Amino acid sequence: MINSLNRFVPDSLIPYQGIKKGERKLINEVISKNKEKLVNSISEVFDIIPIQSGMTISFHHHLRNGDDVLNMVLAEIKKRDLKNMVLAPSAIFPVHAPMVELIKNQNITKIYTNYINGPVSDIVTQGFLKELLVMDTHGGRPRAIESGELTIDVSFIAVPTSDKDGNGNGIDGLSACGTLGYAISDLMYAKKKVVVTDHLVDHVNKIDIEAKYVDFVISVPRIGDAKGIVSGTTKPTKDPVQLKIANDTAKLIDELGFIKEGMSFQTGAGGTSLAVAKAMQTLMIQKNVKGSFASGGITDFLVKMHEDGLFERLYDVQCFDLEAVKSYKNNPNHFSMSASKYGNPYDQPIVDQLDIVILGATEIDLDFNVNVTTDSHGNLIGGSGGHSDTAAGAKLTIITTNLLKSRTSMVKEKVTTITTPGETVDCLVTERGIAINPKRTDLIEKLKDSKLNIVTMEELLHKAKSIAGIPQPKQKSDQIIGVVRYRDGSIIDSIYKV
Amino acid sequence: MINSLNRFVPDSLIPYQGIKKGERKLINEVISKNKEKLVNSISEVFDIIPIQSGMTISFHHHLRNGDDVLNMVLAEIKKRDLKNMVLAPSAIFPVHAPMVELIKNQNITKIYTNYINGPVSDIVTQGFLKELLVMDTHGGRPRAIESGELTIDVSFIAVPTSDKDGNGNGIDGLSACGTLGYAISDLMYAKKKVVVTDHLVDHVNKIDIEAKYVDFVISVPRIGDAKGIVSGTTKPTKDPVQLKIANDTAKLIDELGFIKEGMSFQTGAGGTSLAVAKAMQTLMIQKNVKGSFASGGITDFLVKMHEDGLFERLYDVQCFDLEAVKSYKNNPNHFSMSASKYGNPYDQPIVDQLDIVILGATEIDLDFNVNVTTDSHGNLIGGSGGHSDTAAGAKLTIITTNLLKSRTSMVKEKVTTITTPGETVDCLVTERGIAINPKRTDLIEKLKDSKLNIVTMEELLHKAKSIAGIPQPKQKSDQIIGVVRYRDGSIIDSIYKV
Repeated sequence: MINSLNRFVPDSLIPYQGIKKGERKLINEVISKNKEKLVNSISEVFDIIPIQSGMTISFHHHLRNGDDVLNMVLAEIKKRDLKNMVLAPSAIFPVHAPMVELIKNQNITKIYTNYINGPVSDIVTQGFLKELLVMDTHGGRPRAIESGELTIDVSFIAVPTSDKDGNGNGIDGLSACGTLGYAISDLMYAKKKVVVTDHLVDHVNKIDIEAKYVDFVISVPRIGDAKGIVSGTTKPTKDPVQLKIANDTAKLIDELGFIKEGMSFQTGAGGTSLAVAKAMQTLMIQKNVKGSFASGGITDFLVKMHEDGLFERLYDVQCFDLEAVKSYKNNPNHFSMSASKYGNPYDQPIVDQLDIVILGATEIDLDFNVNVTTDSHGNLIGGSGGHSDTAAGAKLTIITTNLLKSRTSMVKEKVTTITTPGETVDCLVTERGIAINPKRTDLIEKLKDSKLNIVTMEELLHKAKSIAGIPQPKQKSDQIIGVVRYRDGSIIDSIYKV
Repeated sequence: MINSLNRFVPDSLIPYQGIKKGERKLINEVISKNKEKLVNSISEVFDIIPIQSGMTISFHHHLRNGDDVLNMVLAEIKKRDLKNMVLAPSAIFPVHAPMVELIKNQNITKIYTNYINGPVSDIVTQGFLKELLVMDTHGGRPRAIESGELTIDVSFIAVPTSDKDGNGNGIDGLSACGTLGYAISDLMYAKKKVVVTDHLVDHVNKIDIEAKYVDFVISVPRIGDAKGIVSGTTKPTKDPVQLKIANDTAKLIDELGFIKEGMSFQTGAGGTSLAVAKAMQTLMIQKNVKGSFASGGITDFLVKMHEDGLFERLYDVQCFDLEAVKSYKNNPNHFSMSASKYGNPYDQPIVDQLDIVILGATEIDLDFNVNVTTDSHGNLIGGSGGHSDTAAGAKLTIITTNLLKSRTSMVKEKVTTITTPGETVDCLVTERGIAINPKRTDLIEKLKDSKLNIVTMEELLHKAKSIAGIPQPKQKSDQIIGVVRYRDGSIIDSIYKV
């Protein structure tokens, strides 16, 4: 056999057929991966795929309360009056209020998410969602997707900067939000992947979204409202009660021997959490200790600690402010991590390498079970996010909260909803004392000579009751509207209609 | 149904069963991904998998002529006297001489590689390999692997730094070699993946090899000889003939209008190539031009241009020296790319975005076909690597070579072996003139008033003949021992026994 270069080719092999420079002519002349991916609108992509009633559609929440993309898709579902749609956004915010009408009309009948807040949480609490709400964790969601348990038909991925092939990132453009960790499982596992961008460029530098996984690219005027995307700057609290809690927490960490070379640390973006980080910073400098990594959602405060050499690395699933976005762009040891790498228990996650995590609570009970999913009336107000993932993974899990808020005790006999099992929670720090989980006899032993105010959970409950009185027992409805699903897929608790 | 927290769980769902902090107890108590991966030796991993006669084993070549890992595996194949093994290393170097005996004894009967040099190439040229040698390109190899055409049973991946789970990179440790681009397809697609490291650490900062793809980790005293891994420093030539070629090349690029804002560029690590880069650097500074990216194997010279702001980004499949390794570690816009992202035509590769590539040749013919696979006697001495990938992708493909070497013309009527089809080659620059591919009428038009010595390929051949005489026509053997496979899988040429 002779090929187009007039060279002999052994039989059974494919002879070279010649190419014209600049044309991508390959053996298969039409290669889907090289096809034009740009489509004009959300509506057009609904027609092309096509998106039909009953399908599962997913989203990430990096644009937070500034997200326009989920709402664009909702508008199209409404226009077409598709029914029985399943939504799997990694979180739902007040901005997603248009979903309320679609739930009432049974356009949307099932939701998987890790966090829910605002009008949608209200309507779900009231029992309007036809099927059970599944509240996953940040690590549990990628587990469900990657194991095939949660099959996504179409993922709409908001990408702040993309080229026409779908190579993209979150660090440039008007809607820059930083790392895109929550989108990665969807990108890799959804049947069809649609990138929605408001910053279409010729070349993308840092490629966090790889074109080879992308089926369609849509350029729109705006994917989000910058004011809702990043919170600007996040600062440690100046409230004296919270400052006491923060300082006591840092002292506790120190007395337990966790301020040490190579320590790793995670905390949230709240004022108390950052005050803990600030107090720890002082101790680390005093002791000349250098940590290995800080992880989770990253704030400017952690960026500063990293740049000052206090943490060697940052593992960032989500940038909380513009300083974090900038750092991710410029600091070589500020790494993006996917939600799976962050918390999926089957992916050797970063949470399992954590030494210390500082977490909040809306309720905590005598068994150290924590609720961040509902309020004490049972209304949905949040969800685990990474709460139970990090609590399980970290060697030292500390909950910080005021004992009393608005004359209500945060410590309960039983929490309304369990988000995080007490057996993964080690300490509670309040302004009126610190309780250590009796299962952690090793920690209790280390604190036997401590000057910190170590108390039992029962004592905290008693103190709270003596100040705020005994709350009326609440009558639970027996209609289950959702479940709290643990990172391994098992069910922690049910959520009831209010 | 009631779970271990005494909470009600709707039927048909899996109740939470409790965990003990610090233990990774999940629904499936034994999770292969979390199993101990450390094994004691290459021999042990042969037993566990098990590795048997007829299997396909792959390797990457980032340790180049300092690689110990392929040889360790060869020793085990020899010890066990396994037969009919298929090897798929991305390149073969003189250090792999122990392979000769295994080819003679038919322990190894088939080889896929992108580059072959040294005693193994000699023995293959002599016809000792039982089946056809397949010479792939750097982009064609991942295409073959990812398309399922080349199925790898076990990949042994040399990783200069790894943790016990197999998270690793090439930037730290005694055998640091930089990016690990050639290993990525093997890592993702081989049936079993074995990481071999000589620097086992607790935590890995930058994760280029992801543990979730890794089945086994072996810690050995040494994966390679540092002297053979990196070439130290790579410098532009000082040879006056090569300098003339380099300067003319830069002038040619300029006259063709390619020195312009946003330009992208690739060249090799040879002295002439770097002299071209140096001459281009001068022009870029004079014209105040900033390039978008340089790609391919990265050298300290390109690092310097990047750090000086002359190229915004580096896309690095392989670090050629220690400065490149250091830059990859520290410069946020120095990116690793997989071989697939580099050259796989089905993966929107970086080569298809290139403006300019500078390449070498051992022969080039009147049709602009280039040979870098054999010498003019037909002896295997190299292979495409990224030669034909970049030639096809770049808007301007320039071959630079001395017209005469050791009184032999580099320009031939027909090259002995075609590595890169002439239809993808645009210009040849020699010390005695510059030939432009007649198919590129656009380039010829731009050069019509040029003061450069523009000649035809026929004139160059004539000049060479008038100086060095007319070479004896060579008699080809008709026994085919291998094939040159293009990046799309079609066959460019056959390779004959000598």
